[in-house]
Amino acid sequence: MFIAMNQFKVAAGREADFEAGWRQRESYLDQTPGFVHFALMKGDEQGDYISHTIWASREAFIGWTQSEAFRRAHAGGMPEGVIEGHPRARFYDSVITESGPVPANLG
Amino acid sequence: MFIAMNQFKVAAGREADFEAGWRQRESYLDQTPGFVHFALMKGDEQGDYISHTIWASREAFIGWTQSEAFRRAHAGGMPEGVIEGHPRARFYDSVITESGPVPANLG
Repeated sequence: MFIAMNQFKVAAGREADFEAGWRQRESYLDQTPGFVHFALMKGDEQGDYISHTIWASREAFIGWTQSEAFRRAHAGGMPEGVIEGHPRARFYDSVITESGPVPANLG
Repeated sequence: MFIAMNQFKVAAGREADFEAGWRQRESYLDQTPGFVHFALMKGDEQGDYISHTIWASREAFIGWTQSEAFRRAHAGGMPEGVIEGHPRARFYDSVITESGPVPANLG
């Protein structure tokens, strides 16, 4: 299990614009080998959002970043002033995992 | 889908101690309603770790924090000097989700 997160600081009052930008995005993720789950997540702190993608492995993630699907998914972009500063990417490998009694249904 | 993350800065050279502390922990999570998945995740940046727990809902997470299982799971602790500063907790609700073609197997 490998997780790629990108943390965004959204300008006050522009949250709806930010979420709409993500809703309109064509991700092409479901055609990508090793893709497990994507979520846009809203934090409790104002303006804190992360894009949160679970991959079967780091190799699957790297393969996606080198694909035509990745290029197309990132061709759009947000309107001016929605995001403050630069998104911060972080990458994590699992060390210990523990699953609930039923298979994960992440929505 | 609700995610609770706790970010740790582990002292240089103490990574193995930190991971061992987590391996020895009795989490009791699998007895907890709404628990979906736990992972201790190691970041690419030196000393960056997160505990990453997926819950069916925020209510499930809050219920766990008020439980005897939570109290017991946190009764231990790390040896002196393993963690630098204070862990940083962040809480996220899903806004948009997208699943891969096969049910999530998160390990």
